[in-house]
Amino acid sequence: MHAITISEPGGPEVLRWSAAPDPEPGPGEVLLRVAATAVNRADLLQRKGFYPPPAGSSPIVGLECSGTVAALGEGVSDWHVGDPACALLAGGGYAELVAVPAVQLMPIPSGVDLVTAAGLPEVACTVWSNVVHTARLGAGETLLVHGGAGGIGTHAIQVGKALGATVAVTAGSAERLTRCRELGADVTLNYREREFENEISADVILDNMGGKYLPRNVAALNRGGRLVVIGMQGGATGELNLGALLAKNASVTATGLRYRPVAEKGAITAAVVEHVWPMIAAGTVRPVVHEVLPIQRAADAHRMLEAGGVFGKLVLAVSS
Amino acid sequence: MHAITISEPGGPEVLRWSAAPDPEPGPGEVLLRVAATAVNRADLLQRKGFYPPPAGSSPIVGLECSGTVAALGEGVSDWHVGDPACALLAGGGYAELVAVPAVQLMPIPSGVDLVTAAGLPEVACTVWSNVVHTARLGAGETLLVHGGAGGIGTHAIQVGKALGATVAVTAGSAERLTRCRELGADVTLNYREREFENEISADVILDNMGGKYLPRNVAALNRGGRLVVIGMQGGATGELNLGALLAKNASVTATGLRYRPVAEKGAITAAVVEHVWPMIAAGTVRPVVHEVLPIQRAADAHRMLEAGGVFGKLVLAVSS
Repeated sequence: MHAITISEPGGPEVLRWSAAPDPEPGPGEVLLRVAATAVNRADLLQRKGFYPPPAGSSPIVGLECSGTVAALGEGVSDWHVGDPACALLAGGGYAELVAVPAVQLMPIPSGVDLVTAAGLPEVACTVWSNVVHTARLGAGETLLVHGGAGGIGTHAIQVGKALGATVAVTAGSAERLTRCRELGADVTLNYREREFENEISADVILDNMGGKYLPRNVAALNRGGRLVVIGMQGGATGELNLGALLAKNASVTATGLRYRPVAEKGAITAAVVEHVWPMIAAGTVRPVVHEVLPIQRAADAHRMLEAGGVFGKLVLAVSS
Repeated sequence: MHAITISEPGGPEVLRWSAAPDPEPGPGEVLLRVAATAVNRADLLQRKGFYPPPAGSSPIVGLECSGTVAALGEGVSDWHVGDPACALLAGGGYAELVAVPAVQLMPIPSGVDLVTAAGLPEVACTVWSNVVHTARLGAGETLLVHGGAGGIGTHAIQVGKALGATVAVTAGSAERLTRCRELGADVTLNYREREFENEISADVILDNMGGKYLPRNVAALNRGGRLVVIGMQGGATGELNLGALLAKNASVTATGLRYRPVAEKGAITAAVVEHVWPMIAAGTVRPVVHEVLPIQRAADAHRMLEAGGVFGKLVLAVSS
């Protein structure tokens, strides 16, 4: 097969569409012929050598994809060759073929085309596992989403609204905030101009900034508030004021999908299929795709994400 | 009535048994004639002027007591004058009389005398609300309790064992650790001699050290681990490594009982009566009282707690 390979850690230019060995599905796995994959910020880190795949996973970049089932590993009975599916991956998505545990496969949501579906697994699984499983967002509560214009953010706005929450977002331009409001955001704030912690208080905060925002996020939490950190664009460490947290009976959780055991990932994809796919089928939640590029242009896609200005997901189509 | 009053913030010597106005039960409150109260580390802070009572609460120190119902405020129908009870208080326990919301009253557990029961509300409500409600400790998991020899610690060991957990504790002497083992602790570690994070990993950590232990507690957490901070004897702030937390899908929560709304306190006391009182009645969990002193010796009790060496609770008996 062909895949995007990385000659050595570095800039986008190290991403090359090259021949690579075909993956083989192990027991409990499915081999997917990839129709499309999508770009995650974690891919940029892996490209630079900072985010190694879990032991036993593909060294190829790519945390999600869509495609059709090409072969079944031992013991897989609930999928069939030819089935369309999308999948949460521990790696390997930037390729023509990928092997993935069958429990991480999901059907394509009703009304979504195969290529577009490539951009759903990461956002849907991240938002549901964090906002619902971890933070238990309730109807009537306020959800603050940092990076509201990104892939996770644009999905979180819509799911937050579908769950009956008031949704506040931060983003870096008036145009991006306008588009967040079109997706349902109730409160929007330009982080380049205003300090969110002075204007917004939230029950749940979905944060992609990490250390840099930690004190400010704690300040913005309501009593009983839950801060969930899923990215560390502002550094991995920060000062935590436990006294402030204690006065609010509040919590800080940090989670990632990639290193979770397969069974946990399976529980998350099952919950997403049960709860989020119907929202998409009903049109309550829609995929937000900034642009679809051919996978041979993966380097350009990385450059676009690094430059900022992408609204929603960048999808990489694989034509084979 | 008489009560322990504080002339000005300071050392134990500012605690004086003096005349004070009788409290009056407001709507939904009960007036208790206090049989005994108990000493909490928070009392030392309040004595020094660092831990103000919530708005509307008694300025008198004392977060728990036992006694008999002396009068009922408007709308209270589930308690009667003469009923023995113990109570979680926002303040006012170091006195002959205290007014308390009726939902914060609990019956005296079967087999426990009235004076001993004064030392149960804070430990039982703190441990249950944090270890069960917040951290959801499961059977088969490991619970690490810092300060295992203190009031909270001695109770947490027993409840942890009753819930089917493996219980590890830290304390500052071999003798204290031996007594923790007698209460059921499976793993004990002298924090003066060894570094707990090198030897213990835990699913749930109940911490009273705050900032000083924050990085070490994060290091000791298992995947999916929950650190619950209930005291800050090692400072209110510390560095949080969100990268380490994220790699473990772990959380940090900090909670206190005192500033919670009355309804939340009522939910906690109800859960304690439902779940913990039967453990006490069955002898699975027993009150651990270091010494009972007359309340006129409150200053000595504070000195004892400050000096270290108290195992379990110090109870202050009120004879009126």
